Amino acid sequence: MNELTIEGYLTELGKKEGTPGGGSAAAYIASMSAALIRMVADIQKDKKAYADYSEEITQALEASHALRKAFEQLAKDDAVAFEPVLMAYKLPKGTDEEKERRQEEVQKAIKGAAQPPLEMLEKSHDLIDLIEQLTRMKMKGTIVNDLMVATLFVGTVLETAVLNVTINTKLLSDANERNALEKKAIERLSTGKQRISQLRQTIEYFLEKNEWPESI
Amino acid sequence: MNELTIEGYLTELGKKEGTPGGGSAAAYIASMSAALIRMVADIQKDKKAYADYSEEITQALEASHALRKAFEQLAKDDAVAFEPVLMAYKLPKGTDEEKERRQEEVQKAIKGAAQPPLEMLEKSHDLIDLIEQLTRMKMKGTIVNDLMVATLFVGTVLETAVLNVTINTKLLSDANERNALEKKAIERLSTGKQRISQLRQTIEYFLEKNEWPESI
Repeated sequence: MNELTIEGYLTELGKKEGTPGGGSAAAYIASMSAALIRMVADIQKDKKAYADYSEEITQALEASHALRKAFEQLAKDDAVAFEPVLMAYKLPKGTDEEKERRQEEVQKAIKGAAQPPLEMLEKSHDLIDLIEQLTRMKMKGTIVNDLMVATLFVGTVLETAVLNVTINTKLLSDANERNALEKKAIERLSTGKQRISQLRQTIEYFLEKNEWPESI
Repeated sequence: MNELTIEGYLTELGKKEGTPGGGSAAAYIASMSAALIRMVADIQKDKKAYADYSEEITQALEASHALRKAFEQLAKDDAVAFEPVLMAYKLPKGTDEEKERRQEEVQKAIKGAAQPPLEMLEKSHDLIDLIEQLTRMKMKGTIVNDLMVATLFVGTVLETAVLNVTINTKLLSDANERNALEKKAIERLSTGKQRISQLRQTIEYFLEKNEWPESI
């Protein structure tokens, strides 16, 4: 899918066939956030003012690239994640034994379908880590704007991923399993939103005053 | 640019060269929102339950496609929008006359660079129009989730576009012009956010209760 042109991907996304859907789109937004983080690190890399951070910047370059790739993979995983659920629903349900087996397979497949968005929630926190790290370097100029954009993008990824977890977990018959997965997703969303809100406040401070707050 | 593969675009986005940057990425998020809206309309199109809406759905299909294309164009426009500013800064500034001319050209180019994000703000409202329209059809099932995702995406587009307007308008020396453009951008953001918040509330109601609130 990552070899599609943007044009081609958007056409697929707009078709009534369910895949790719919003989950893959969210993963690409995360990849774009990672790419913007990489761009910021790349711009800082050769500037003398950040020579003290040279090792950290090299690490951020690598980490942001790896995250971009991980989210591209998640876009692909998400696009096919519901297929096993549809397959499982097609299993025979003539005998009690068949019904039981079908039910087990369906539930297993649903848990599988919730995995890509759960993974997106986890990895969104890795993106936030990187943005926080770059923010602490107190850089100057228009690249700060790009850090803000990267931050905004992660917020949308978190919210979309939670929707895509719960759309699956709703179908789980085991209330304990359902609650455990939903609780995890909501915890990742809520801590993520707090971190993003803090980041936005810090970056907005810079964008308004052209200097960083004392305590970051 | 729209003929780049997703892979190729993300690599360009991650490079230290300034373009494409966050503005084009936001335009693609808007295109993805438009594609998801198109998908929802496409799924409803042949369903008997929505036969009464058949004409409206056909219009929504066309309008969402046109918006997707418009945002793809804006992604391209945004990627080159700052070039005239850089060109203008290179004009000679030896004589007073040259200085004056250079200043005029720079200011004109900056206003031009603010146009794509201003246009994104306008067209984001067109996306919201479409989501509102589809919501009023009180559809059922998982496609409601896609409407929510489309809504979340527009929110990010609005916020990113405003940042990209003000990063340019900050450079305008004429305070009246600067204020007028910023006021317009902030008005579009603030009414957009209100509309999105209303939509989210309505869609969340459905996602929780599996029925639509009375008054939409």
